[in-house]
Amino acid sequence: MKIDILTLFPQMFEPLRQSIIGRAVDNGLLSLNITDIRQYSADKHCKCDDYPFGGGAGMVMMPQPIYDAVAAIDPDHSSRRIYMSPKGKRLTDALAKELAFSDKNLLILCGHYEGVDQRVLDLCFDSEISIGDYVLTGGELAAMVTVDALSRFLPGVLGSDTSNIDESITSGRLEYPQYTRPAEFMGLKVPDVLLSGHHANVKKWRNEESEKLTQRLRPDLMRCEK
Amino acid sequence: MKIDILTLFPQMFEPLRQSIIGRAVDNGLLSLNITDIRQYSADKHCKCDDYPFGGGAGMVMMPQPIYDAVAAIDPDHSSRRIYMSPKGKRLTDALAKELAFSDKNLLILCGHYEGVDQRVLDLCFDSEISIGDYVLTGGELAAMVTVDALSRFLPGVLGSDTSNIDESITSGRLEYPQYTRPAEFMGLKVPDVLLSGHHANVKKWRNEESEKLTQRLRPDLMRCEK
Repeated sequence: MKIDILTLFPQMFEPLRQSIIGRAVDNGLLSLNITDIRQYSADKHCKCDDYPFGGGAGMVMMPQPIYDAVAAIDPDHSSRRIYMSPKGKRLTDALAKELAFSDKNLLILCGHYEGVDQRVLDLCFDSEISIGDYVLTGGELAAMVTVDALSRFLPGVLGSDTSNIDESITSGRLEYPQYTRPAEFMGLKVPDVLLSGHHANVKKWRNEESEKLTQRLRPDLMRCEK
Repeated sequence: MKIDILTLFPQMFEPLRQSIIGRAVDNGLLSLNITDIRQYSADKHCKCDDYPFGGGAGMVMMPQPIYDAVAAIDPDHSSRRIYMSPKGKRLTDALAKELAFSDKNLLILCGHYEGVDQRVLDLCFDSEISIGDYVLTGGELAAMVTVDALSRFLPGVLGSDTSNIDESITSGRLEYPQYTRPAEFMGLKVPDVLLSGHHANVKKWRNEESEKLTQRLRPDLMRCEK
């Protein structure tokens, strides 16, 4: 899968060069291209924002640099073009999976300042995605969250293919508590069943714990069940 | 405000050194300390994870390095200690504001792999926060999103104090469309009212557009209203 990201802050994308996503890129499982919108500005000072018409605080990203960047990167509109915005469709694991399993590449625009000129969004973009009901200083972290959430569904990205299935949320249940060595820490012992070697009992205990946790913390997840 | 972050991947925090948050740190409006958990490992190879008791895919973060890091950084438990987890309380702008306006500092733990030994969470942490219903490969992006969302509420972080108030979500309304120069782009004109210089009409138009957008995309925000 190929993902293009348009941003005014390409150096912010360091997290995607690290850890699991960085390895996926190194292994050719994911192609990630970060483009600096500034290089497409027709302004001699590479200006990319200007005051909002009608007044108000902050600056608005100008349409021209974004329009030209999109035209250069995705000339035949073969990618799914997404703008990260609090107005967008809410990112969920289901949406992340849909993006990962789609045969379309992605082009993601990160906004900044007070937003982006509405005309370039209308002209060039297919949809908007929001990672949650909070406002960020820019779309960069939201884009990285989206890439990270969907990458987990790309074949080969996670070390073990079962790792994703057990996980909170994806299964409609919160994950059971995890324990590792030592068996006793600060006087607290690992639950006996996990040391028993009895696989069926371990499985039963984990299911029950997941159920209890979900019931207590996120009963809405259980109600959504088909 | 002081924020401590515990992570196995300190180099991932580059985004917080950039743009608005980076400036807030440079200006002393926010103190941000990133601690590598590995340096607290008692293991000679600085090991911080191990196999889960009871079996299963992936690795679990061991309690000792985290326990010792927390004890060193926040010995008197004066910080609010948060673990980033899909099980946690959902981050919203209201919660971000509450964290920003609290007189407590923050200590944020980023998990990785299959999670963190439950005992160190029980022993050391006050609460869990989730940025949304999706699973990430680690808690680092979630921690950065939380820091970014709350920083916007810290006095002086945003250039203009009004910038935050107009914003989507915070006001219970999605933001009206924004436009900047040129007045005509690719045949599309900026709405006349925004060029009129008539402030009352601009305000009225923006309120109506916010209302329409919210009604269409997020009617739930309007229902929540007090």
